[in-house]
Amino acid sequence: MSSFFTLTSTPEYRRGTVTTAHGLFQTPAFMSVGTQATVKALTPDDLRMIGAEIILGNTYHLYLRPGVEAIKKFGGLHKFMAWNGPLLTDSGGFQVLSLAKLRKLSDEGVEFQSHLDGAKLFFSPAEVMRAQEALGSDIMMCLDQCIDYESQPQAVHKAMLLTHKWAAMCKGSHVSNNQALFAIVQGGANMAWRRESAKTLTDMDFPGYAIGGTGVGEPKSVLWEMVEAAIEHLPKDKPRYLMGIGAPEDLLEGVARGVDMFDCALPTRVARNGALFTPDGRVNIRAPQFQAMDAPLDSDCDCYTCKHFTAAYVSHLYRTEELLAYRLGTIHNLRFILRLMEGARQTIVDGGFAQYKDGFLSRYKVTDEDTRLEQKRKWMERNG
Amino acid sequence: MSSFFTLTSTPEYRRGTVTTAHGLFQTPAFMSVGTQATVKALTPDDLRMIGAEIILGNTYHLYLRPGVEAIKKFGGLHKFMAWNGPLLTDSGGFQVLSLAKLRKLSDEGVEFQSHLDGAKLFFSPAEVMRAQEALGSDIMMCLDQCIDYESQPQAVHKAMLLTHKWAAMCKGSHVSNNQALFAIVQGGANMAWRRESAKTLTDMDFPGYAIGGTGVGEPKSVLWEMVEAAIEHLPKDKPRYLMGIGAPEDLLEGVARGVDMFDCALPTRVARNGALFTPDGRVNIRAPQFQAMDAPLDSDCDCYTCKHFTAAYVSHLYRTEELLAYRLGTIHNLRFILRLMEGARQTIVDGGFAQYKDGFLSRYKVTDEDTRLEQKRKWMERNG
Repeated sequence: MSSFFTLTSTPEYRRGTVTTAHGLFQTPAFMSVGTQATVKALTPDDLRMIGAEIILGNTYHLYLRPGVEAIKKFGGLHKFMAWNGPLLTDSGGFQVLSLAKLRKLSDEGVEFQSHLDGAKLFFSPAEVMRAQEALGSDIMMCLDQCIDYESQPQAVHKAMLLTHKWAAMCKGSHVSNNQALFAIVQGGANMAWRRESAKTLTDMDFPGYAIGGTGVGEPKSVLWEMVEAAIEHLPKDKPRYLMGIGAPEDLLEGVARGVDMFDCALPTRVARNGALFTPDGRVNIRAPQFQAMDAPLDSDCDCYTCKHFTAAYVSHLYRTEELLAYRLGTIHNLRFILRLMEGARQTIVDGGFAQYKDGFLSRYKVTDEDTRLEQKRKWMERNG
Repeated sequence: MSSFFTLTSTPEYRRGTVTTAHGLFQTPAFMSVGTQATVKALTPDDLRMIGAEIILGNTYHLYLRPGVEAIKKFGGLHKFMAWNGPLLTDSGGFQVLSLAKLRKLSDEGVEFQSHLDGAKLFFSPAEVMRAQEALGSDIMMCLDQCIDYESQPQAVHKAMLLTHKWAAMCKGSHVSNNQALFAIVQGGANMAWRRESAKTLTDMDFPGYAIGGTGVGEPKSVLWEMVEAAIEHLPKDKPRYLMGIGAPEDLLEGVARGVDMFDCALPTRVARNGALFTPDGRVNIRAPQFQAMDAPLDSDCDCYTCKHFTAAYVSHLYRTEELLAYRLGTIHNLRFILRLMEGARQTIVDGGFAQYKDGFLSRYKVTDEDTRLEQKRKWMERNG
């Protein structure tokens, strides 16, 4: 796996390339989320058009429908969804803890009921390895216990230790050569534990490391502390993947701190709600000013939507709840994010990343803390 | 308007070309329905890809949202929705009678309440002309009173006379040179009235004629009798448009009887329900045999969906209610219909249309009468 990750430029910031069995992707990279074997509303052609190099599939959802054995029979997830580029699958652990009913955690794994039909299922480290090997993703994730950062310290510590134990068990069960297995750093908001987790997993020697338990409603200051504590003790020559983070401002902050990979459903989810990215911040495309705007939402945007349609038309599609709205909005938001990452990669090479980041952040109005806390509240509700 | 319609081949069947300000379309033609300035789930690029030459917009819906004045300000419906090919708009009358609340009919027009917000509105012949001129469609329709064929004879007769009166008023109000105005034959299931309606409107001299009050649940035998009675007295050198008919078997039956244009929401509506066309009939893509089918739904189909994805994948998208399902299903069904029409046009020229029709119909299993009656019942309910 020596050629798996190549750092091509690391003066102050990291710029790299990950090579997989299905081609390479450049880092820092944003991975679009394709939960159920589709990035919602888009085809693989759409993804290539917007410059997506790697996408993500969710093992939990695919395990339930159509089933990993079915996908294996069809030749794997790449072939099933007709995406021939790099593909990462998560372990399913996060969804078990956030979506499934009646979960029962033990050292051996987690028993849960499908949120769809109540079927009783069990995810052990070996089972999630088997599932991801059946899916045939290029990068697989270890089963981890993602825990709310505000949980009791004892529970956070226990979750971290279980995550380490499961990481070792996953590594032991992992047999496929073409699939890189990443471990996940936990430890909540306790920086000593974050460091301990990073060290422990580094000692186990994985081809890449994720920072988990993030993007779940924690204040931004806590998030970046957690990231810095972990990164300090992660090996420089392995890719670092910050899970569940994908707001534009956070991507640049993460890159500045040495993160190589990101994933987040936010750009696609808010697109379906009509919240579209502009250099000035997120806007509600249904708003009257866009309803009357006889020009693209962003004249500088190179996305298919802005190149073909006026803001007035896109606004009309959202107001009338037309299906085309979701595709056009998703294309716009993902292209915005992927172009932001292209700019980051280019300016890292050219030496102007700090200015690029400052320039973007000085103009981009970040979604306010109230909105963020509301999102956090909803996440907590969902988690019972 | 002498070059508006050219019949290029009429030995037994009609094969023609309609030339509009936005290019030509070949007849017999199927027009895809783009109710709210979008053929649901598709872009204009998608429409060109599947071979659509002319599409239809619904004046009633556009009148309510975003408003015809707004669309006029944006440069017309073509520019607003980024479709630069031929475009037909209906008068809005059918939707007023099927969707709007508290309608009040008089000789002067129809008063109604928007089904969206209850706003009180009035469609006179002059107003629907003004609306369609604001939309800038290439073919406009006269306001007509579409009445259930099973209504009291007196009511059917009265509706026909009102339709004739309104046709004259529409013609009188029509000022734009680039927009061809079609009249609509009514007369219910009374064949003498159908003939009378065709004759009366023909005497008024329109560039094209529609046959209305069809596709609303009448038995097929009655439908074709109505069509034949009207066509007998319509001029040979003007296009004939059969409204609301678009099931595959009906398209070929209509072509055989000398119909030049069709429109119907059925192919797109049933696509969104997962009912996809095959040479053997409509199938439910969610069915277990397709869920397991590691091949395109129809290996002979040249549509984007069948060229890129297996039936198993499309079935999965429908079962998980993924947005991509609706686009892929719509592309497949519309391409099926447009290819059927391409075949009809080609075999009319080559002289093999009768065999083409028989060959298709001998294989294609038509949706049964019970399903059709159920559809009729729903339509009646909707009409109060």
